[in-house]
Amino acid sequence: MNVAFIGMGTMGAAMALNILKAGHEVTVHNRTREREEPLAAAGARRAASPMEAAEGVEIVITCVSDTPDVEAVALGKNGIIQSARAGAIVVDMSTISPSVTRRIAAELATKGIPMLDAPVSGGSEGAREGTLSIMVGGEAPVVQKAMPVLSAMGKNITHVGPTGAGQMTKAINQVVAAGVYLAVAEGVTLGIKAGLDMDKVVQALSGGASGSWVLNHRSGNMIRNEYPLGFRVRLHRKDLAIVMEAARELGVFLPGTGLVEQIENDLISQGYGDEDLSAVARMIRQKSGVE
Amino acid sequence: MNVAFIGMGTMGAAMALNILKAGHEVTVHNRTREREEPLAAAGARRAASPMEAAEGVEIVITCVSDTPDVEAVALGKNGIIQSARAGAIVVDMSTISPSVTRRIAAELATKGIPMLDAPVSGGSEGAREGTLSIMVGGEAPVVQKAMPVLSAMGKNITHVGPTGAGQMTKAINQVVAAGVYLAVAEGVTLGIKAGLDMDKVVQALSGGASGSWVLNHRSGNMIRNEYPLGFRVRLHRKDLAIVMEAARELGVFLPGTGLVEQIENDLISQGYGDEDLSAVARMIRQKSGVE
Repeated sequence: MNVAFIGMGTMGAAMALNILKAGHEVTVHNRTREREEPLAAAGARRAASPMEAAEGVEIVITCVSDTPDVEAVALGKNGIIQSARAGAIVVDMSTISPSVTRRIAAELATKGIPMLDAPVSGGSEGAREGTLSIMVGGEAPVVQKAMPVLSAMGKNITHVGPTGAGQMTKAINQVVAAGVYLAVAEGVTLGIKAGLDMDKVVQALSGGASGSWVLNHRSGNMIRNEYPLGFRVRLHRKDLAIVMEAARELGVFLPGTGLVEQIENDLISQGYGDEDLSAVARMIRQKSGVE
Repeated sequence: MNVAFIGMGTMGAAMALNILKAGHEVTVHNRTREREEPLAAAGARRAASPMEAAEGVEIVITCVSDTPDVEAVALGKNGIIQSARAGAIVVDMSTISPSVTRRIAAELATKGIPMLDAPVSGGSEGAREGTLSIMVGGEAPVVQKAMPVLSAMGKNITHVGPTGAGQMTKAINQVVAAGVYLAVAEGVTLGIKAGLDMDKVVQALSGGASGSWVLNHRSGNMIRNEYPLGFRVRLHRKDLAIVMEAARELGVFLPGTGLVEQIENDLISQGYGDEDLSAVARMIRQKSGVE
């Protein structure tokens, strides 16, 4: 297919490369233009704006930082809406507000441009290896049409519901992740303070009812008190802002998530915002006197 | 081996039966004597007190409700200490205080009776099927000697450290479980309030970084708002009392666990103490207006 990809961050650049490798034609654009260069070297065309990138293609993918960035790229005066042809599909793979997603999709629909929200999880490793989980919101025939490109980037691709459902599923993912990281951080800190051999404790727990991906893959960071990337604390906090906006709109009680948000504020104010999210344990350790 | 088993609750009766089936000689005792009957029918001898049960056997297992029960059964005037021969091993499989465990072990040691703390996880199903996880504290040669009996009851048997380490590991298990149940409860409630198809959401999340045993096995309860057993809320709260005692003694900061303890207080005061721990979602749903 003929694809435009806007946003050459760590995630976007790796995802665009996998689309190229799958044999599609790709045009790339990034606000800081030199970030387009590695993709151009791999065979992509470059475009000077989202508007130019979107011209004539079948699919326009956006993977940018936050809600206002998607609004600007999609609807701005050099945005996708200015040039995309009717029937071209916009796939937003950023993590942004579900309600703003519905607003952008409604605006694009006035020009006959369907939109999918398709945020991902699986981190930079998943982006490189094409093994991302992709949570897709939108209409089923549109998801079907975009599938050859989506499947070049991810493995577990789930069509969860209508427009906005992908973003809401990502929000739920971040809520659950927040609580599980805190749970494991508290358990690890209790064990360290009690003088236990934590590798044995993790082994004893990992097959049972308190088992989780975080216990298996991130408790080691917490035991060593070292938090290499990973998924940055400040990015998770950005996602929690989206979660909390949705919780306010819908009236949902999220006391555990609220607690983790405050812990992340503390970590960021201490200068740990670029550590992996498992750094939640850094704060629990500090308050327990095991730094 | 020649085994005494004290405590014929749901867990203890099933565990004693598996020891019998493995070909050991078993003497059973329970405060409410009629609970010994099914085991007697299966070939166990009955004893009128812990003291009588412990006489002449190689291993005495205790599986009772709480810390004072273990103290009474082990050290009371009709307790194990009155009759057990030097070298007989006491294995406490209840979930009780790590620090009291060390005190009981020290007392038994004055008579030459070594003790293991060996609390379990895996629930009544694991007890019936002999697939419990067993977290063992004590000295390595003692663990080795008790292994033929332990392995009749469980699959994942981990010697985590010295006396008390098994109980502390169980405490950590309950800390981590508390947080993961809350995390999944908040995510499920947000999704329900947003009108998502939660089976699809669970499918999208289960292979990724927010995946857990609770998400895979208990989110269904939370989606349906039905909480059959399982593991009772009131028993988990009992275990959290042990956790909080240890946290006070050691000076550990457990804000998420403290939050879950309060949620359990609320559930129990509403009459939901005998529901499965996944009922944490009942309270999050209530406060979010989705009952």
